Parts: sequence; C-alpha cells; structure tokens
Amino acid sequence: MARVIVEVMPKPEILDPQGKAVAGALPRLGFTAFTSVRQGRRFELEVEGEVTEEILEQARTAAAEVLSNPVIEEVVSVHVLEESA
Amino acid sequence: MARVIVEVMPKPEILDPQGKAVAGALPRLGFTAFTSVRQGRRFELEVEGEVTEEILEQARTAAAEVLSNPVIEEVVSVHVLEESA
Repeated sequence: MARVIVEVMPKPEILDPQGKAVAGALPRLGFTAFTSVRQGRRFELEVEGEVTEEILEQARTAAAEVLSNPVIEEVVSVHVLEESA
Repeated sequence: MARVIVEVMPKPEILDPQGKAVAGALPRLGFTAFTSVRQGRRFELEVEGEVTEEILEQARTAAAEVLSNPVIEEVVSVHVLEESA
C-alpha cells in the first residue's frame, strides 16, 4: 500500500481567519517564536499497490480540480509516501 | 525567513466525514485510482531568521497542545521549510 499526499494552502493574498486565530492564540499561550500562521489542508489518498506515474498524474489533476478551490487556494505539494501497512 | 510545517491528521480509528465525502466524489469524477481518502490540516508557522532547535521544540509542543486535538488527531510531521522570500 502506498499513499499520495496532497497539500493545499490558502493563496498568500487570501485572508486566512483560522490561521490568524491560531497566530493570535500562540503568543498568549507562551509560544512567541512565530510571526504568522497559515492554515491549509493535507489529504492522504490511499492507493492499492504501487503509485505509477499515471496514478500520480491522476492525483495532480484531482488536487487541482477537486481537492482545492483554485480561486482561493494553491496546491503546494503532491508527493508519494511509501510505507508498510 | 523560514517556516515550520506542522501536519495533523485524524487518528485512524476516528471517522473522517470530509475524507469520506472526497473519497466518494473522486470516482464519480473519473479519479478511480484511490481506495480511501483522509483529510487533515497543514500549518505554516513563520519564523523571523533561522529555525533553532529551541524554536523547533516550541513548534512541536504547540503542535501537540494547540494545533491538534489529541483526542481525535495525531501530529504526523513537524519539519522546517527553508525558503527565500
């Protein structure tokens, strides 16, 4: 079994209220090292057997068309995570 | 400028309705390669200057205590993303 990981983040010019809320909370809780926080999404797509180039291409298309909203988000990574399970 | 990336996923035993919805939609849209989908979150924590071991430790603690809900989620990765900006 293998997994394709898709990472989606809000575009830099888009407001990110969840990220802002976290960024406001962290210093109040003693975590003072961080100047800004953005919150996005991470998908794990499970694949039976090996991830072929064709499957990876399918994942890239799905990432762009289904898993992200191209108006407000950008796909920052589509990569394979091999693991034993 | 550098960023610390924190990745959080629902625990395997926890239902993931968003992931299930995506897993149901993909084959209807022609993406037939994926047998299961899980949806989690990805945070980008911005740091002025370099990410020291102390800052990374702060990020690990924040990931476990603030950015994730340990009852239903697990932190799958805390790592540094170096970049020019």
